[in-house]
Amino acid sequence: MARPPSRARGLRYSGTVKAVRIGLLGVGTVGAAVAKAIATRGDVLARASRATLVVQRAAVRDPAKERGLSLDRVTTDPLEVVRADDVDVVVELLGGEEPAFGLMKEAIERGKPVVTANKRVVSWHGPELHDLAARKGVELRYEAAVGGGIPLLAPLADDLAANRLLELRAIINGTTNYILTQMAGGSSFQDALARAQKLGYAEADPSDDVDAVDAADKLAILVRIAFGVSCTPKEIFREGVRALDPIDLAYGREMGYALKLLAIARRGEGGIEARVHPAFLPADHPLARVDGARNAVHLLGDLCGPVMFSGLGAGGDATASAVLADLTHVARRLALGDPVEPPRPGHTGLPVLPMDEVRARSYLRLSVDDVPGVFAQITHVLAELGIGLASVIQREPVSGQADVVLMTYAAREAALREAQRRLAALPTTRSVRARIRVEESRT
Amino acid sequence: MARPPSRARGLRYSGTVKAVRIGLLGVGTVGAAVAKAIATRGDVLARASRATLVVQRAAVRDPAKERGLSLDRVTTDPLEVVRADDVDVVVELLGGEEPAFGLMKEAIERGKPVVTANKRVVSWHGPELHDLAARKGVELRYEAAVGGGIPLLAPLADDLAANRLLELRAIINGTTNYILTQMAGGSSFQDALARAQKLGYAEADPSDDVDAVDAADKLAILVRIAFGVSCTPKEIFREGVRALDPIDLAYGREMGYALKLLAIARRGEGGIEARVHPAFLPADHPLARVDGARNAVHLLGDLCGPVMFSGLGAGGDATASAVLADLTHVARRLALGDPVEPPRPGHTGLPVLPMDEVRARSYLRLSVDDVPGVFAQITHVLAELGIGLASVIQREPVSGQADVVLMTYAAREAALREAQRRLAALPTTRSVRARIRVEESRT
Repeated sequence: MARPPSRARGLRYSGTVKAVRIGLLGVGTVGAAVAKAIATRGDVLARASRATLVVQRAAVRDPAKERGLSLDRVTTDPLEVVRADDVDVVVELLGGEEPAFGLMKEAIERGKPVVTANKRVVSWHGPELHDLAARKGVELRYEAAVGGGIPLLAPLADDLAANRLLELRAIINGTTNYILTQMAGGSSFQDALARAQKLGYAEADPSDDVDAVDAADKLAILVRIAFGVSCTPKEIFREGVRALDPIDLAYGREMGYALKLLAIARRGEGGIEARVHPAFLPADHPLARVDGARNAVHLLGDLCGPVMFSGLGAGGDATASAVLADLTHVARRLALGDPVEPPRPGHTGLPVLPMDEVRARSYLRLSVDDVPGVFAQITHVLAELGIGLASVIQREPVSGQADVVLMTYAAREAALREAQRRLAALPTTRSVRARIRVEESRT
Repeated sequence: MARPPSRARGLRYSGTVKAVRIGLLGVGTVGAAVAKAIATRGDVLARASRATLVVQRAAVRDPAKERGLSLDRVTTDPLEVVRADDVDVVVELLGGEEPAFGLMKEAIERGKPVVTANKRVVSWHGPELHDLAARKGVELRYEAAVGGGIPLLAPLADDLAANRLLELRAIINGTTNYILTQMAGGSSFQDALARAQKLGYAEADPSDDVDAVDAADKLAILVRIAFGVSCTPKEIFREGVRALDPIDLAYGREMGYALKLLAIARRGEGGIEARVHPAFLPADHPLARVDGARNAVHLLGDLCGPVMFSGLGAGGDATASAVLADLTHVARRLALGDPVEPPRPGHTGLPVLPMDEVRARSYLRLSVDDVPGVFAQITHVLAELGIGLASVIQREPVSGQADVVLMTYAAREAALREAQRRLAALPTTRSVRARIRVEESRT
């Protein structure tokens, strides 16, 4: 069947495209897995792409390192790859903000579609890149940026498009999920982190993971696609897992909850809640059972109802699976001469709601003096702020000091933060040891 | 941006398509939900479709029934809808084999894309419809035919396209999953079925569900897409849940297993295993925790690793969500003038393996006389057939009769069936009460 000439400006083909030539930026674990798949399963990829994929050029740090790529195609200069006339598509796997961001802009400016796994650049600069891509009529895809090997962004954008998404709750950082799984078994945060580092789940500087920077980046991307909101990570409330104590996981379990670092987005009044923080989930919620380094996203659509996707959120092969999915999409479009669709994220104009407006139950653990009147003071503070008390646990005091664990009813974040401040200031309170938000099952 | 003229033959538009006119066949629960969504969320659908969706004509059983559709667009003759010049896309929601199959053929012959939720027609006649659709250059989509509101077929075909799928295990019949969840709580099959019927999960004649006809239909569709195998339900081994006894669910739980009606497909030597039957799964497998009427599909790809999708497998709104996803795909293609992709299912030429070749562990429960030598006879039969014995449970006999529960190591189906026959023929065996295949966690 004759095809109309390709309309993608970066392509020098006219008529039927037979080969799509890839410029690979970065050949680390993921890049090597992508190159290997292209070399060894050309038939599978060609069937999906309607074209032959070819790694035409690759930018690497050390050209002497063996990667199964012929040396005349390898350079240390990524800009050379982006600018090369014989490169149709740029696959950016360098990670980090620069030079990745500049290289992607350069590629799009030159009319070349970009596939990337770079959550940092997409979360902070996605809107700008999408605008540029729309102007240039090229595709920008980043399935690998969130949830590794789990098909997620494309199903959200395409297959659930008829839905009004009501809620999204996700475990999208495998490192912290591994750490929390260990802490649920009694480990301290430090021990769990050390184990995660030993296994290669956590980096030497674990800040991006344990301070929820990585999860907030990914949530910004999800929120844009799922709710059509133009948000960047700076609008997302973020609290990490460093301060967590295994004793709170144990108390939570006693009350029927599991603790997860959750990325949460929810349609609220006049806007969208978007936040990442440790949260107690009912133990029978499907997300509560996602343990170890796995990722999962639980959605609630007004038509589809609850839907969950789970799988491996990281790893060379799993991430390569997502990069290759995007590549086959792009290659198919080039091969068939399909017009490029305009980008969709961020069209509703809804704001991200301030964290103070968010309503949730809270778990509080206070260390108090074992003297009469303590409870009266605590309940007085909560009552003044209109916060209902759902349950209380108090253990036998040890050497004149007692742990009091409170579970509140849903209240505004602003009120709960104020309660935390006032409870800490009570003469009988030694310290507020923990405040952990609680997510309920709604489906 | 100017668009090239549409190349879909059923379209009378040239240049930019502004409205895509739908012919709806069948306005039951799903059809009504589709029509309602089109009427009430035109903005959302238009954004996803790049076109306005319009229910141009609808075929119904009873035109007097209120459906929110204007009466001049409603007819009792579905052929009239299919043939109407002002219908661009046919949405078939009649269900059942005929007249649905003939109507879909007629639509495709006339160059009209077809969206359907009809698992029966797609499972048995999908290859023929796809061939016809390829010749006519139109799309055939059926996301709603498997897994209701769970995005499944599109992610499998598109987003996991780079993978060699190794294994697929699925709970794709909500009725039987509800029944087995009840039986895990001690209900008899008959009581559980009656409850399912009362709740509307099971029909008055429940044969399609409880005899695994429905699940085999769906598995045939999944196998074609996931493994590229040309198979119809007649090649799929099928065993239902009628004969199950809650005592076997209790024994299984004691051994660490949950019982599910599983649809299983696996890459084997020289072909693909494809079968539907009750199976014990390790209790910590993610599928073991999918209870009630929910559906879930667990995949293992050689790159992506284990991936699971779960959600509502039925219901008007959930099914409408999938129908609308297909409709937006088709409408976008028409609106943007994208060429139609050739159908992909069934390209590898791999055969479906005969059930006799399948290897699995088996659970066996025998009712035997409580006399010396029983065990020796049983183990002799298994040893003769080369079947290893993994574990045995025997309870205190009651009135001279005892239950013996055996768990074998993996063996060929043919050998296990022969073992069942020989064990039943032993003089000390009163009956072989159950044989249930066991699926292991491999990931």
